[in-house]
Amino acid sequence: MSTVESERKARAYLLRVAEPPAPGLVGFVGAHGPVVAAERVRRGDCPPKVREETSARREYDRADHDLARAAAAGARLVVPEDEEWPAWPLHSLTLAAARGVQGSSPPLALWVRGELSLAEVVDGAVAIVGARAATAYGEHQATELAYGLADRGMAVFSGSAYGVDGAAHRGALAAGGPTVAVLGCALDAGYPAGHVSLQDRIAANGGAVVSEYPPGTPPARHRFLVRNRLIAALTEGTVVVEAGRRSGARNTAGTAGALGKAVMALPGPVTSATSVGCHTLIRESQATLVASVEEVVETVGRLGSGGAEPERPRRATDGLAPEALRVYEALPSRAGRSADRVAADSGVPVHTVRALLPALEIDGFASRGEAGWRRCPRRS
Amino acid sequence: MSTVESERKARAYLLRVAEPPAPGLVGFVGAHGPVVAAERVRRGDCPPKVREETSARREYDRADHDLARAAAAGARLVVPEDEEWPAWPLHSLTLAAARGVQGSSPPLALWVRGELSLAEVVDGAVAIVGARAATAYGEHQATELAYGLADRGMAVFSGSAYGVDGAAHRGALAAGGPTVAVLGCALDAGYPAGHVSLQDRIAANGGAVVSEYPPGTPPARHRFLVRNRLIAALTEGTVVVEAGRRSGARNTAGTAGALGKAVMALPGPVTSATSVGCHTLIRESQATLVASVEEVVETVGRLGSGGAEPERPRRATDGLAPEALRVYEALPSRAGRSADRVAADSGVPVHTVRALLPALEIDGFASRGEAGWRRCPRRS
Repeated sequence: MSTVESERKARAYLLRVAEPPAPGLVGFVGAHGPVVAAERVRRGDCPPKVREETSARREYDRADHDLARAAAAGARLVVPEDEEWPAWPLHSLTLAAARGVQGSSPPLALWVRGELSLAEVVDGAVAIVGARAATAYGEHQATELAYGLADRGMAVFSGSAYGVDGAAHRGALAAGGPTVAVLGCALDAGYPAGHVSLQDRIAANGGAVVSEYPPGTPPARHRFLVRNRLIAALTEGTVVVEAGRRSGARNTAGTAGALGKAVMALPGPVTSATSVGCHTLIRESQATLVASVEEVVETVGRLGSGGAEPERPRRATDGLAPEALRVYEALPSRAGRSADRVAADSGVPVHTVRALLPALEIDGFASRGEAGWRRCPRRS
Repeated sequence: MSTVESERKARAYLLRVAEPPAPGLVGFVGAHGPVVAAERVRRGDCPPKVREETSARREYDRADHDLARAAAAGARLVVPEDEEWPAWPLHSLTLAAARGVQGSSPPLALWVRGELSLAEVVDGAVAIVGARAATAYGEHQATELAYGLADRGMAVFSGSAYGVDGAAHRGALAAGGPTVAVLGCALDAGYPAGHVSLQDRIAANGGAVVSEYPPGTPPARHRFLVRNRLIAALTEGTVVVEAGRRSGARNTAGTAGALGKAVMALPGPVTSATSVGCHTLIRESQATLVASVEEVVETVGRLGSGGAEPERPRRATDGLAPEALRVYEALPSRAGRSADRVAADSGVPVHTVRALLPALEIDGFASRGEAGWRRCPRRS
């Protein structure tokens, strides 16, 4: 087994034996590396704090089983030793933990379903979170914000819950942009039941579904709060679209603020109970008011303040000629498709398709596999 | 003529000869007193800046005429030499002028219609301003805020315009609280035409209609901006309820900020064009978000921050027994009414009315004049 695979297996074991965040274990792994740390945890040869965090489950050595079960479901374990590990944004958790911010330890690894490389989309990424019991206004605004951000190539992160979260993911999908669902349960927990197919769509359309929790872990209230730190850390800013007086979205916003990220809230009618949390965040200067996509972009600092700056290409594919774009859009993002089938689907003559596909491959838009041609994950 | 009456006449003359704000003239009056200043202006014996401000109209010596015309319309000229002059809040203008804030000279005097003493209501007074083309949401919120503030005994100031202004005055009137309309034209200009009867109601129901402009002065765009400084100065805070991208209400808010007063804005749906100005003020930290009467009260600092503070009486009349309150409410605020008529109007037996009226007089709620009993101006 290669070094990285040994480390991956060690981290798969460690993710199962301690309930995150496990600050003692994270520090222990940082000091000794995952392989040695895993061996010592297994033997009980570790400092008291680590032993306490791992005592209940250290016998559960199911790493091979977990990795196989994940692979069977199209998921993988992304570890800090991988290139796609989003090291820079997660560093905000390490810094916060060092400052003594409770519950801000970074994850030991992340289970990921979907082809998206987190490292490639975290630059400019925005979290859109809010009430499950959102109003039509809140869902509409979440969809519009997510669509607008995704349309500008900015990844939209959320928590896959009903209401605002789901609307945000759907808005990003509608724009053909990357969206990431970070769960408070295992990828295979099937939660929430009504959003299983939404998670499938996210994973199949250039996005990712992400969790710290090993296969089979059910959702739990404390896990949503622990998960919130990942949403806050992996993005440059969090927008709260609707939130009642006590809301998990306000928890994410508070964490984002503690991590030094931009915290934003969308106002609404003062007569709406689901805007109370947003108004309070703004009134108490914990969040900046945002009323449009442009204001979100300005707040996360993606565009700087000058009006003279040349306009960014709205999408990576903006530079493609019309026929190349039609070919690109006819490519599946998973499995593969023959050039003939792409020609039929796109309406572009097959000899043109045969000429364009290698060009798209060189530019990083397409790749050829055993099953045929497929779309490459969108470049950030 | 008494000294005060000489000063009043001098100021009536000076209000007519210079278009406010007239910083040169204000300084000249401060240095020499109104009587000497008026004589010297009349002769043209004054510094160049004052001569410039007064050259066009210094021959218009219509003070007696203006005072008589105002008196005939139930108005009076309130001067700094009067006890009812709101000296303390207007001092914010003197300070701002000294700091070089453009157009922030205090008024030389104020034409006032209505029995209200401005000096008695400025403590805790709040301005509610906003778009003329307000939505139903904006008008409703302006009414509710004004009602709630007036119900707590806080005076509501506004500009008597259509939309938010009118709704604010009406809300305060509905609560039986004092409201003050500050105009950008003469008291007798009949502007805006659809609010002449509203101004009558304000003056007749314990409020006041106020202007710097001598009788006959028509409205003008620059006068509304000049007037805005008075609304900002006379109150402890300004709430912008609805405002488009470019709005006079934002000008009032800006002035209030420059004078060190609380600036507040009410949020609304981000889809509403008339909330854009409010959201911008909040987003740019020029205004504090307020979503309720309680938040306005908290922001202007009327109630401090402790929750243990005993509840204030909601109105001065809260201490009255039910029958006394019915008698009080049957009293007219102008002219006078016989005890028999009050008994008939209130449904309280006439012998009880005859016993209660002197008690109400002692407590400052009623007064007896040649025409009968009337209500005293509400105590602040």
